[in-house]
Amino acid sequence: MARHIYACPLRWSDMDAFGHVNNVVFLRYLEEARIDFMFTQAAEAGAGEFAGGSVVARHEIDYRRPLVHRPEPVTVETRVTRIGGASLTVAYEIKDTAADGTETVYVQASTVVVPYDLAEGRPRRISPVEREFLSRFMDEEVVAV
Amino acid sequence: MARHIYACPLRWSDMDAFGHVNNVVFLRYLEEARIDFMFTQAAEAGAGEFAGGSVVARHEIDYRRPLVHRPEPVTVETRVTRIGGASLTVAYEIKDTAADGTETVYVQASTVVVPYDLAEGRPRRISPVEREFLSRFMDEEVVAV
Amino acid sequence: MARHIYACPLRWSDMDAFGHVNNVVFLRYLEEARIDFMFTQAAEAGAGEFAGGSVVARHEIDYRRPLVHRPEPVTVETRVTRIGGASLTVAYEIKDTAADGTETVYVQASTVVVPYDLAEGRPRRISPVEREFLSRFMDEEVVAV
Amino acid sequence: MARHIYACPLRWSDMDAFGHVNNVVFLRYLEEARIDFMFTQAAEAGAGEFAGGSVVARHEIDYRRPLVHRPEPVTVETRVTRIGGASLTVAYEIKDTAADGTETVYVQASTVVVPYDLAEGRPRRISPVEREFLSRFMDEEVVAV
Repeated sequence: MARHIYACPLRWSDMDAFGHVNNVVFLRYLEEARIDFMFTQAAEAGAGEFAGGSVVARHEIDYRRPLVHRPEPVTVETRVTRIGGASLTVAYEIKDTAADGTETVYVQASTVVVPYDLAEGRPRRISPVEREFLSRFMDEEVVAV
Repeated sequence: MARHIYACPLRWSDMDAFGHVNNVVFLRYLEEARIDFMFTQAAEAGAGEFAGGSVVARHEIDYRRPLVHRPEPVTVETRVTRIGGASLTVAYEIKDTAADGTETVYVQASTVVVPYDLAEGRPRRISPVEREFLSRFMDEEVVAV
Repeated sequence: MARHIYACPLRWSDMDAFGHVNNVVFLRYLEEARIDFMFTQAAEAGAGEFAGGSVVARHEIDYRRPLVHRPEPVTVETRVTRIGGASLTVAYEIKDTAADGTETVYVQASTVVVPYDLAEGRPRRISPVEREFLSRFMDEEVVAV
Repeated sequence: MARHIYACPLRWSDMDAFGHVNNVVFLRYLEEARIDFMFTQAAEAGAGEFAGGSVVARHEIDYRRPLVHRPEPVTVETRVTRIGGASLTVAYEIKDTAADGTETVYVQASTVVVPYDLAEGRPRRISPVEREFLSRFMDEEVVAV
Protein backbone atom coordinates (compact mmCIF):
# COMPACT_ATOMS: atom_id res chain seq x y z
CA MET A 1 0.00 0.00 0.00
CA ALA A 2 1.49 3.26 -1.16
CA ARG A 3 1.59 6.54 0.68
CA HIS A 4 1.77 9.94 -0.97
CA ILE A 5 4.81 11.73 0.43
CA TYR A 6 5.08 15.50 0.09
CA ALA A 7 8.07 17.53 1.29
CA CYS A 8 6.31 20.74 2.30
CA PRO A 9 8.47 23.88 2.48
CA LEU A 10 7.78 26.21 5.41
CA ARG A 11 7.74 29.99 5.16
CA TRP A 12 9.07 32.20 7.91
CA SER A 13 5.74 34.03 7.98
CA ASP A 14 3.96 30.77 8.83
CA MET A 15 4.86 31.54 12.44
CA ASP A 16 2.56 33.71 14.51
CA ALA A 17 3.30 36.07 17.40
CA PHE A 18 3.77 33.07 19.73
CA GLY A 19 6.76 32.02 17.59
CA HIS A 20 5.27 28.73 16.32
CA VAL A 21 3.71 27.70 13.03
CA ASN A 22 0.13 28.93 13.42
CA ASN A 23 -2.57 26.26 13.71
CA VAL A 24 -4.36 27.54 10.60
CA VAL A 25 -1.21 27.34 8.48
CA PHE A 26 -1.02 23.55 8.94
CA LEU A 27 -4.18 23.37 6.82
CA ARG A 28 -2.23 25.16 4.09
CA TYR A 29 0.37 22.41 4.31
CA LEU A 30 -2.42 19.82 3.94
CA GLU A 31 -3.75 21.78 0.96
CA GLU A 32 -0.33 21.81 -0.67
CA ALA A 33 -0.03 18.04 -0.19
CA ARG A 34 -3.54 17.52 -1.62
CA ILE A 35 -2.78 19.75 -4.63
CA ASP A 36 0.34 17.70 -5.34
CA PHE A 37 -1.56 14.43 -4.85
CA MET A 38 -4.91 15.17 -6.49
CA PHE A 39 -3.90 17.72 -9.12
CA THR A 40 -0.31 17.03 -10.19
CA GLN A 41 0.16 13.31 -9.53
CA ALA A 42 -3.41 12.33 -10.43
CA ALA A 43 -3.02 14.16 -13.75
CA GLU A 44 0.19 12.28 -14.48
CA ALA A 45 -1.79 9.07 -13.86
CA GLY A 46 -4.46 10.16 -16.34
CA ALA A 47 -6.93 11.43 -13.75
CA GLY A 48 -6.66 15.13 -14.40
CA GLU A 49 -10.17 16.28 -13.60
CA PHE A 50 -9.77 16.84 -9.86
CA ALA A 51 -7.77 19.96 -10.79
CA GLY A 52 -10.80 21.30 -12.61
CA GLY A 53 -12.80 21.44 -9.40
CA SER A 54 -12.71 19.89 -5.93
CA VAL A 55 -14.46 21.07 -2.82
CA VAL A 56 -13.43 20.44 0.78
CA ALA A 57 -16.49 19.25 2.73
CA ARG A 58 -14.88 18.61 6.12
CA HIS A 59 -11.60 18.69 8.03
CA GLU A 60 -10.65 17.10 11.32
CA ILE A 61 -7.25 18.10 12.65
CA ASP A 62 -5.38 17.23 15.84
CA TYR A 63 -2.32 19.18 16.89
CA ARG A 64 0.29 16.98 18.58
CA ARG A 65 3.40 19.17 18.88
CA PRO A 66 4.47 22.73 18.06
CA LEU A 67 6.61 23.34 14.99
CA VAL A 68 9.10 26.18 14.54
CA HIS A 69 10.29 27.52 11.19
CA ARG A 70 13.46 26.00 9.76
CA PRO A 71 14.85 25.86 6.21
CA GLU A 72 14.11 22.13 5.82
CA PRO A 73 10.65 21.06 4.61
CA VAL A 74 8.34 18.98 6.77
CA THR A 75 6.85 15.72 5.49
CA VAL A 76 3.13 15.39 4.78
CA GLU A 77 2.24 11.72 4.40
CA THR A 78 -1.18 11.16 2.85
CA ARG A 79 -3.25 8.04 2.37
CA VAL A 80 -6.80 7.45 1.16
CA THR A 81 -9.13 6.00 3.78
CA ARG A 82 -12.45 6.05 1.93
CA ILE A 83 -13.57 6.15 -1.71
CA GLY A 84 -17.30 6.78 -1.95
CA GLY A 85 -19.45 7.35 -5.01
CA ALA A 86 -19.12 11.10 -5.01
CA SER A 87 -16.63 11.84 -2.24
CA LEU A 88 -13.42 10.55 -0.75
CA THR A 89 -11.54 10.85 2.51
CA VAL A 90 -7.81 11.33 2.89
CA ALA A 91 -5.86 11.09 6.14
CA TYR A 92 -2.51 12.71 6.75
CA GLU A 93 0.36 13.01 9.15
CA ILE A 94 2.64 16.03 9.20
CA LYS A 95 5.92 14.87 10.64
CA ASP A 96 9.70 14.58 10.65
CA THR A 97 11.48 11.26 10.45
CA ALA A 98 14.96 11.12 11.96
CA ALA A 99 17.81 9.16 10.40
CA ASP A 100 17.18 6.33 12.88
CA GLY A 101 13.52 6.16 11.87
CA THR A 102 12.13 7.95 14.91
CA GLU A 103 9.06 9.97 13.99
CA THR A 104 8.03 13.34 15.41
CA VAL A 105 4.38 13.89 14.55
CA TYR A 106 3.10 17.49 14.58
CA VAL A 107 -0.37 17.00 13.16
CA GLN A 108 -2.82 14.22 12.33
CA ALA A 109 -5.78 15.12 10.17
CA SER A 110 -8.37 13.97 7.67
CA THR A 111 -10.34 15.68 4.92
CA VAL A 112 -13.49 14.81 3.00
CA VAL A 113 -13.15 15.95 -0.62
CA VAL A 114 -16.02 16.23 -3.10
CA PRO A 115 -15.19 16.30 -6.84
CA TYR A 116 -17.01 19.21 -8.35
CA ASP A 117 -18.10 20.05 -11.86
CA LEU A 118 -17.47 23.80 -11.99
CA ALA A 119 -19.17 24.19 -15.39
CA GLU A 120 -22.32 22.44 -14.17
CA GLY A 121 -22.05 23.97 -10.71
CA ARG A 122 -22.60 20.71 -8.85
CA PRO A 123 -20.82 17.71 -7.32
CA ARG A 124 -20.03 14.85 -9.65
CA ARG A 125 -19.26 11.14 -9.24
CA ILE A 126 -15.73 9.79 -9.01
CA SER A 127 -14.70 8.34 -12.38
CA PRO A 128 -13.23 4.84 -12.83
CA VAL A 129 -9.76 6.21 -13.67
CA GLU A 130 -9.86 8.40 -10.54
CA ARG A 131 -10.99 5.43 -8.46
CA GLU A 132 -8.14 3.32 -9.76
CA PHE A 133 -5.63 6.09 -8.99
CA LEU A 134 -6.97 6.68 -5.48
CA SER A 135 -7.12 2.97 -4.62
CA ARG A 136 -3.33 2.73 -4.96
CA PHE A 137 -3.11 4.91 -1.86
CA MET A 138 -5.98 3.19 -0.05
CA ASP A 139 -5.52 2.11 3.48
CA GLU A 140 -8.63 0.08 3.98
CA GLU A 141 -11.32 -1.70 2.01
CA VAL A 142 -12.69 0.31 -0.92
CA VAL A 143 -16.30 1.13 -0.16
CA ALA A 144 -18.29 1.93 -3.28
CA VAL A 145 -21.44 3.85 -2.48
CA MET B 1 -27.78 31.38 27.53
CA ALA B 2 -25.58 33.88 25.75
CA ARG B 3 -23.84 33.53 22.45
CA HIS B 4 -20.70 35.39 21.47
CA ILE B 5 -21.41 37.26 18.25
CA TYR B 6 -18.55 38.47 16.09
CA ALA B 7 -18.97 40.46 12.87
CA CYS B 8 -15.99 39.18 10.90
CA PRO B 9 -14.74 41.38 8.03
CA LEU B 10 -13.72 39.55 4.86
CA ARG B 11 -10.72 40.48 2.76
CA TRP B 12 -10.76 40.29 -1.02
CA SER B 13 -7.67 38.09 -0.90
CA ASP B 14 -9.58 35.51 1.16
CA MET B 15 -10.84 34.18 -2.14
CA ASP B 16 -8.78 31.62 -4.02
CA ALA B 17 -8.47 30.94 -7.75
CA PHE B 18 -11.90 29.25 -7.73
CA GLY B 19 -13.43 32.63 -6.76
CA HIS B 20 -14.69 31.55 -3.30
CA VAL B 21 -13.43 32.14 0.20
CA ASN B 22 -10.80 29.42 0.56
CA ASN B 23 -11.57 26.62 3.02
CA VAL B 24 -8.46 27.39 5.09
CA VAL B 25 -9.43 31.04 5.48
CA PHE B 26 -12.60 30.11 7.40
CA LEU B 27 -10.30 28.93 10.18
CA ARG B 28 -8.89 32.47 10.26
CA TYR B 29 -12.44 33.75 10.77
CA LEU B 30 -12.82 31.30 13.66
CA GLU B 31 -9.49 32.49 15.06
CA GLU B 32 -10.61 36.11 14.87
CA ALA B 33 -13.84 35.25 16.71
CA ARG B 34 -11.90 33.32 19.37
CA ILE B 35 -9.41 36.18 19.81
CA ASP B 36 -12.30 38.59 20.35
CA PHE B 37 -14.04 36.14 22.72
CA MET B 38 -11.11 34.72 24.70
CA PHE B 39 -8.65 37.63 24.58
CA THR B 40 -10.63 40.88 24.37
CA GLN B 41 -13.98 40.07 26.00
CA ALA B 42 -12.56 37.67 28.59
CA ALA B 43 -10.07 40.36 29.64
CA GLU B 44 -12.88 42.86 30.05
CA ALA B 45 -14.57 40.31 32.33
CA GLY B 46 -11.41 39.99 34.43
CA ALA B 47 -10.18 36.80 32.78
CA GLY B 48 -7.20 38.18 30.92
CA GLU B 49 -4.84 35.23 30.99
CA PHE B 50 -6.04 33.40 27.91
CA ALA B 51 -4.34 36.13 25.90
CA GLY B 52 -1.04 35.20 27.53
CA GLY B 53 -1.14 31.75 25.95
CA SER B 54 -3.70 29.40 24.45
CA VAL B 55 -3.09 26.40 22.25
CA VAL B 56 -5.48 24.89 19.73
CA ALA B 57 -5.57 21.11 20.27
CA ARG B 58 -8.17 20.15 17.68
CA HIS B 59 -10.54 21.53 15.04
CA GLU B 60 -13.52 19.94 13.35
CA ILE B 61 -15.00 21.94 10.51
CA ASP B 62 -17.86 21.27 8.10
CA TYR B 63 -18.37 23.37 5.00
CA ARG B 64 -22.04 23.90 4.16
CA ARG B 65 -22.08 26.55 1.44
CA PRO B 66 -19.57 28.62 -0.57
CA LEU B 67 -19.02 32.26 0.37
CA VAL B 68 -17.95 35.02 -1.99
CA HIS B 69 -16.23 38.26 -0.93
CA ARG B 70 -18.48 41.25 -0.24
CA PRO B 71 -17.94 44.43 1.79
CA GLU B 72 -20.27 43.31 4.61
CA PRO B 73 -18.86 41.19 7.42
CA VAL B 74 -20.07 37.65 8.07
CA THR B 75 -21.33 36.60 11.51
CA VAL B 76 -19.41 34.11 13.63
CA GLU B 77 -21.61 32.87 16.47
CA THR B 78 -19.70 31.08 19.21
CA ARG B 79 -20.85 29.10 22.22
CA VAL B 80 -19.00 27.00 24.79
CA THR B 81 -19.90 23.32 24.72
CA ARG B 82 -17.45 21.91 27.28
CA ILE B 83 -15.42 23.29 30.17
CA GLY B 84 -12.93 20.71 31.39
CA GLY B 85 -10.21 21.02 34.00
CA ALA B 86 -7.49 22.09 31.60
CA SER B 87 -9.26 22.47 28.27
CA LEU B 88 -12.48 23.75 26.78
CA THR B 89 -14.47 23.27 23.60
CA VAL B 90 -16.16 26.00 21.62
CA ALA B 91 -18.60 25.48 18.75
CA TYR B 92 -19.32 28.02 16.05
CA GLU B 93 -21.49 28.83 13.11
CA ILE B 94 -20.37 31.18 10.34
CA LYS B 95 -23.51 32.59 8.80
CA ASP B 96 -25.66 35.41 7.52
CA THR B 97 -29.04 36.20 8.98
CA ALA B 98 -31.53 37.92 6.67
CA ALA B 99 -33.90 40.64 7.85
CA ASP B 100 -36.69 38.05 8.07
CA GLY B 101 -34.56 35.82 10.30
CA THR B 102 -33.62 33.28 7.63
CA GLU B 103 -30.14 31.91 8.23
CA THR B 104 -27.58 30.99 5.59
CA VAL B 105 -24.95 28.83 7.26
CA TYR B 106 -21.55 28.59 5.55
CA VAL B 107 -19.58 26.68 8.18
CA GLN B 108 -20.15 24.71 11.38
CA ALA B 109 -17.10 23.95 13.48
CA SER B 110 -15.69 23.23 16.91
CA THR B 111 -12.30 23.76 18.53
CA VAL B 112 -10.62 22.31 21.61
CA VAL B 113 -8.53 25.00 23.30
CA VAL B 114 -5.89 24.37 25.97
CA PRO B 115 -4.85 27.29 28.19
CA TYR B 116 -1.08 27.43 28.21
CA ASP B 117 1.48 28.90 30.56
CA LEU B 118 4.07 30.24 28.12
CA ALA B 119 6.55 31.09 30.88
CA GLU B 120 6.38 27.56 32.33
CA GLY B 121 6.07 25.99 28.89
CA ARG B 122 3.13 23.75 29.79
CA PRO B 123 -0.67 23.56 29.86
CA ARG B 124 -2.38 24.99 32.91
CA ARG B 125 -5.76 24.55 34.59
CA ILE B 126 -8.71 26.82 33.89
CA SER B 127 -9.06 29.34 36.72
CA PRO B 128 -12.34 30.01 38.59
CA VAL B 129 -12.74 33.46 37.00
CA GLU B 130 -12.20 31.96 33.54
CA ARG B 131 -14.71 29.19 34.33
CA GLU B 132 -17.29 31.73 35.41
CA PHE B 133 -16.75 33.77 32.22
CA LEU B 134 -16.96 30.73 29.94
CA SER B 135 -20.05 29.32 31.64
CA ARG B 136 -22.06 32.38 30.58
CA PHE B 137 -21.69 31.12 27.00
CA MET B 138 -22.24 27.48 27.89
CA ASP B 139 -24.66 25.46 25.88
CA GLU B 140 -24.84 22.34 28.00
CA GLU B 141 -24.08 21.15 31.48
CA VAL B 142 -20.73 22.28 32.81
CA VAL B 143 -18.54 19.22 33.20
CA ALA B 144 -15.71 19.77 35.65
CA VAL B 145 -12.91 17.26 35.14
CA MET C 1 -10.28 67.82 -2.50
CA ALA C 2 -11.66 64.59 -1.11
CA ARG C 3 -9.76 61.74 0.44
CA HIS C 4 -10.92 58.14 0.47
CA ILE C 5 -10.97 56.96 4.08
CA TYR C 6 -11.00 53.25 4.85
CA ALA C 7 -11.18 51.82 8.37
CA CYS C 8 -9.11 48.68 7.90
CA PRO C 9 -9.66 45.88 10.44
CA LEU C 10 -6.54 44.07 11.63
CA ARG C 11 -6.31 40.33 12.18
CA TRP C 12 -4.34 38.81 15.01
CA SER C 13 -2.46 36.68 12.50
CA ASP C 14 -1.20 39.82 10.74
CA MET C 15 1.57 39.84 13.35
CA ASP C 16 4.70 37.85 12.71
CA ALA C 17 7.11 36.15 15.13
CA PHE C 18 8.57 39.56 16.07
CA GLY C 19 5.14 40.53 17.47
CA HIS C 20 4.42 43.34 14.99
CA VAL C 21 2.22 43.57 11.92
CA ASN C 22 4.42 42.05 9.23
CA ASN C 23 5.70 44.42 6.54
CA VAL C 24 4.03 42.40 3.77
CA VAL C 25 0.63 42.56 5.47
CA PHE C 26 0.53 46.36 5.15
CA LEU C 27 0.21 45.80 1.40
CA ARG C 28 -2.91 43.75 2.15
CA TYR C 29 -4.28 46.78 4.00
CA LEU C 30 -3.54 48.91 0.95
CA GLU C 31 -5.25 46.31 -1.24
CA GLU C 32 -8.34 46.35 0.97
CA ALA C 33 -8.48 50.16 0.76
CA ARG C 34 -8.06 50.03 -3.03
CA ILE C 35 -10.79 47.37 -3.37
CA ASP C 36 -13.14 49.58 -1.38
CA PHE C 37 -12.15 52.65 -3.39
CA MET C 38 -11.85 51.27 -6.92
CA PHE C 39 -14.35 48.40 -6.78
CA THR C 40 -17.10 49.27 -4.31
CA GLN C 41 -17.15 53.08 -4.28
CA ALA C 42 -16.31 53.47 -7.98
CA ALA C 43 -19.17 51.10 -8.85
CA GLU C 44 -21.57 53.17 -6.75
CA ALA C 45 -20.42 56.20 -8.77
CA GLY C 46 -21.17 54.37 -12.03
CA ALA C 47 -17.56 53.35 -12.72
CA GLY C 48 -17.87 49.63 -12.12
CA GLU C 49 -15.32 48.28 -14.57
CA PHE C 50 -12.22 48.49 -12.39
CA ALA C 51 -13.65 45.49 -10.52
CA GLY C 52 -13.60 43.50 -13.74
CA GLY C 53 -9.84 43.74 -13.93
CA SER C 54 -7.05 45.91 -12.57
CA VAL C 55 -3.36 45.15 -12.41
CA VAL C 56 -0.82 46.54 -9.96
CA ALA C 57 2.21 47.73 -11.92
CA ARG C 58 4.31 49.15 -9.08
CA HIS C 59 4.37 49.78 -5.33
CA GLU C 60 6.58 52.05 -3.26
CA ILE C 61 6.18 51.69 0.48
CA ASP C 62 7.93 53.31 3.42
CA TYR C 63 7.59 51.95 6.93
CA ARG C 64 7.53 54.68 9.56
CA ARG C 65 6.50 52.97 12.80
CA PRO C 66 5.67 49.44 14.00
CA LEU C 67 2.03 48.51 14.55
CA VAL C 68 0.74 45.91 17.02
CA HIS C 69 -2.60 44.12 16.73
CA ARG C 70 -5.56 45.69 18.52
CA PRO C 71 -9.32 45.32 18.06
CA GLU C 72 -9.69 48.80 16.55
CA PRO C 73 -9.18 49.26 12.81
CA VAL C 74 -6.41 51.43 11.41
CA THR C 75 -7.14 54.21 8.94
CA VAL C 76 -5.99 54.01 5.33
CA GLU C 77 -6.28 57.43 3.69
CA THR C 78 -6.03 57.32 -0.10
CA ARG C 79 -5.78 60.06 -2.69
CA VAL C 80 -5.16 60.02 -6.43
CA THR C 81 -1.90 61.67 -7.49
CA ARG C 82 -1.89 60.91 -11.22
CA ILE C 83 -4.49 60.02 -13.85
CA GLY C 84 -2.83 58.96 -17.09
CA GLY C 85 -4.34 57.61 -20.27
CA ALA C 86 -4.10 53.96 -19.28
CA SER C 87 -2.83 54.01 -15.70
CA LEU C 88 -3.25 55.91 -12.48
CA THR C 89 -1.29 56.42 -9.28
CA VAL C 90 -2.74 56.43 -5.79
CA ALA C 91 -0.90 57.48 -2.64
CA TYR C 92 -1.83 56.35 0.86
CA GLU C 93 -1.11 56.85 4.51
CA ILE C 94 -1.85 54.14 7.08
CA LYS C 95 -2.34 55.92 10.36
CA ASP C 96 -4.19 56.59 13.59
CA THR C 97 -5.59 59.99 14.43
CA ALA C 98 -6.01 60.79 18.12
CA ALA C 99 -8.96 62.75 19.51
CA ASP C 100 -6.82 65.88 19.59
CA GLY C 101 -5.91 65.46 15.91
CA THR C 102 -2.41 64.11 16.45
CA GLU C 103 -1.48 61.63 13.73
CA THR C 104 0.60 58.50 14.12
CA VAL C 105 1.70 57.41 10.66
CA TYR C 106 2.74 53.77 10.24
CA VAL C 107 3.15 53.60 6.47
CA GLN C 108 3.33 55.91 3.45
CA ALA C 109 2.98 54.29 0.06
CA SER C 110 1.96 54.66 -3.56
CA THR C 111 0.72 52.27 -6.23
CA VAL C 112 0.51 52.43 -10.01
CA VAL C 113 -2.66 50.69 -11.19
CA VAL C 114 -3.39 49.64 -14.78
CA PRO C 115 -7.02 48.99 -15.78
CA TYR C 116 -7.14 45.65 -17.54
CA ASP C 117 -9.55 44.07 -19.96
CA LEU C 118 -9.56 40.45 -18.77
CA ALA C 119 -11.62 39.25 -21.76
CA GLU C 120 -9.22 40.85 -24.24
CA GLY C 121 -6.20 40.03 -22.11
CA ARG C 122 -4.68 43.50 -22.34
CA PRO C 123 -4.54 46.90 -20.62
CA ARG C 124 -7.25 49.36 -21.54
CA ARG C 125 -7.68 53.13 -21.37
CA ILE C 126 -9.35 54.89 -18.46
CA SER C 127 -12.94 55.78 -19.40
CA PRO C 128 -14.42 59.27 -18.98
CA VAL C 129 -16.69 58.16 -16.11
CA GLU C 130 -13.69 56.60 -14.34
CA ARG C 131 -11.66 59.75 -14.90
CA GLU C 132 -14.42 61.87 -13.42
CA PHE C 133 -14.67 59.59 -10.38
CA LEU C 134 -10.90 59.52 -9.82
CA SER C 135 -10.50 63.27 -10.23
CA ARG C 136 -12.66 63.87 -7.16
CA PHE C 137 -9.84 62.36 -5.11
CA MET C 138 -7.08 64.05 -7.07
CA ASP C 139 -4.36 65.81 -5.22
CA GLU C 140 -2.69 67.59 -8.08
CA GLU C 141 -3.35 68.66 -11.64
CA VAL C 142 -4.95 66.01 -13.81
CA VAL C 143 -2.44 64.98 -16.41
CA ALA C 144 -4.05 63.41 -19.45
CA VAL C 145 -1.57 61.32 -21.42
CA MET D 1 30.51 39.24 -7.96
CA ALA D 2 28.20 36.66 -6.41
CA ARG D 3 24.45 36.59 -6.51
CA HIS D 4 22.28 34.94 -3.87
CA ILE D 5 20.02 32.45 -5.66
CA TYR D 6 16.89 31.18 -3.94
CA ALA D 7 14.53 28.60 -5.45
CA CYS D 8 11.24 29.83 -4.02
CA PRO D 9 8.38 27.27 -3.88
CA LEU D 10 4.94 28.59 -4.81
CA ARG D 11 1.73 27.63 -3.01
CA TRP D 12 -1.53 27.10 -4.84
CA SER D 13 -3.17 29.62 -2.50
CA ASP D 14 -0.72 32.30 -3.68
CA MET D 15 -3.12 32.86 -6.55
CA ASP D 16 -6.04 35.23 -6.10
CA ALA D 17 -9.50 35.26 -7.68
CA PHE D 18 -7.99 36.53 -10.96
CA GLY D 19 -6.03 33.25 -11.20
CA HIS D 20 -2.54 34.79 -10.89
CA VAL D 21 -0.05 35.01 -8.07
CA ASN D 22 -1.32 38.02 -6.12
CA ASN D 23 0.87 41.12 -6.16
CA VAL D 24 1.25 41.08 -2.37
CA VAL D 25 2.46 37.48 -2.36
CA PHE D 26 5.56 38.39 -4.39
CA LEU D 27 6.73 40.31 -1.32
CA ARG D 28 6.47 37.03 0.60
CA TYR D 29 8.79 35.49 -1.99
CA LEU D 30 11.22 38.36 -1.44
CA GLU D 31 10.95 37.82 2.31
CA GLU D 32 11.71 34.13 1.92
CA ALA D 33 14.78 34.96 -0.19
CA ARG D 34 15.93 37.54 2.38
CA ILE D 35 15.41 35.10 5.27
CA ASP D 36 17.55 32.54 3.45
CA PHE D 37 20.18 35.17 2.61
CA MET D 38 20.32 37.24 5.79
CA PHE D 39 19.34 34.63 8.39
CA THR D 40 20.48 31.20 7.19
CA GLN D 41 23.42 31.93 4.89
CA ALA D 42 24.70 34.91 6.88
CA ALA D 43 24.69 32.74 10.03
CA GLU D 44 26.71 30.06 8.24
CA ALA D 45 29.22 32.79 7.37
CA GLY D 46 29.47 33.83 11.03
CA ALA D 47 27.08 36.79 10.74
CA GLY D 48 24.16 35.39 12.70
CA GLU D 49 22.76 38.56 14.24
CA PHE D 50 20.48 39.66 11.43
CA ALA D 51 18.19 36.79 12.48
CA GLY D 52 17.89 38.37 15.93
CA GLY D 53 16.21 41.40 14.47
CA SER D 54 15.90 43.19 11.13
CA VAL D 55 13.37 45.77 10.07
CA VAL D 56 12.20 46.54 6.56
CA ALA D 57 12.30 50.32 6.03
CA ARG D 58 11.23 50.49 2.40
CA HIS D 59 10.23 48.41 -0.63
CA GLU D 60 10.04 49.33 -4.30
CA ILE D 61 8.54 46.68 -6.52
CA ASP D 62 7.76 46.60 -10.24
CA TYR D 63 5.55 43.92 -11.73
CA ARG D 64 6.66 42.85 -15.20
CA ARG D 65 4.61 39.74 -16.02
CA PRO D 66 1.88 37.64 -14.39
CA LEU D 67 2.82 34.31 -12.80
CA VAL D 68 0.55 31.29 -12.48
CA HIS D 69 1.00 28.52 -9.91
CA ARG D 70 3.03 25.49 -10.98
CA PRO D 71 4.85 22.80 -8.98
CA GLU D 72 8.31 24.16 -9.90
CA PRO D 73 9.83 26.91 -7.75
CA VAL D 74 10.61 30.34 -9.16
CA THR D 75 14.07 31.87 -8.84
CA VAL D 76 14.71 34.89 -6.65
CA GLU D 77 18.10 36.38 -7.47
CA THR D 78 19.36 38.85 -4.86
CA ARG D 79 22.29 41.20 -4.82
CA VAL D 80 23.41 43.93 -2.42
CA THR D 81 23.39 47.42 -3.92
CA ARG D 82 24.25 49.53 -0.86
CA ILE D 83 25.91 48.94 2.51
CA GLY D 84 25.47 51.94 4.76
CA GLY D 85 26.44 52.41 8.39
CA ALA D 86 23.13 51.22 9.82
CA SER D 87 21.17 50.05 6.81
CA LEU D 88 21.59 48.18 3.55
CA THR D 89 19.75 47.86 0.26
CA VAL D 90 19.17 44.64 -1.62
CA ALA D 91 17.81 44.36 -5.16
CA TYR D 92 16.10 41.30 -6.56
CA GLU D 93 14.69 39.74 -9.67
CA ILE D 94 12.01 37.05 -9.54
CA LYS D 95 12.35 35.05 -12.73
CA ASP D 96 12.60 31.82 -14.67
CA THR D 97 15.60 30.95 -16.78
CA ALA D 98 15.00 28.57 -19.69
CA ALA D 99 17.48 25.87 -20.70
CA ASP D 100 18.77 28.13 -23.48
CA GLY D 101 19.40 30.95 -21.01
CA THR D 102 16.36 33.04 -21.91
CA GLU D 103 15.04 34.87 -18.87
CA THR D 104 11.39 35.57 -18.05
CA VAL D 105 11.33 38.28 -15.39
CA TYR D 106 8.16 38.57 -13.28
CA VAL D 107 9.27 41.14 -10.70
CA GLN D 108 12.10 43.59 -10.06
CA ALA D 109 12.34 45.04 -6.59
CA SER D 110 14.54 46.52 -3.90
CA THR D 111 14.36 46.68 -0.12
CA VAL D 112 16.04 48.85 2.50
CA VAL D 113 16.79 46.75 5.60
CA VAL D 114 17.75 48.15 9.01
CA PRO D 115 19.48 45.80 11.49
CA TYR D 116 17.65 46.07 14.76
CA ASP D 117 18.59 45.34 18.34
CA LEU D 118 15.38 43.85 19.71
CA ALA D 119 16.66 43.79 23.30
CA GLU D 120 17.60 47.48 23.16
CA GLY D 121 14.61 48.36 21.02
CA ARG D 122 16.58 50.39 18.49
CA PRO D 123 18.46 50.19 15.19
CA ARG D 124 22.09 49.18 15.39
CA ARG D 125 25.15 49.55 13.14
CA ILE D 126 26.23 46.88 10.68
CA SER D 127 29.13 44.90 12.17
CA PRO D 128 32.41 44.24 10.32
CA VAL D 129 31.62 40.54 9.87
CA GLU D 130 28.21 41.43 8.44
CA ARG D 131 29.79 44.00 6.14
CA GLU D 132 32.27 41.44 4.88
CA PHE D 133 29.48 38.91 4.23
CA LEU D 134 27.28 41.45 2.45
CA SER D 135 30.10 42.80 0.30
CA ARG D 136 30.49 39.41 -1.38
CA PHE D 137 27.08 40.03 -2.95
CA MET D 138 27.73 43.69 -3.67
CA ASP D 139 26.97 45.02 -7.07
CA GLU D 140 28.57 48.44 -6.80
CA GLU D 141 31.05 50.34 -4.74
CA VAL D 142 30.68 49.85 -1.00
CA VAL D 143 29.61 53.16 0.48
CA ALA D 144 30.36 53.40 4.19
CA VAL D 145 28.23 56.04 5.87
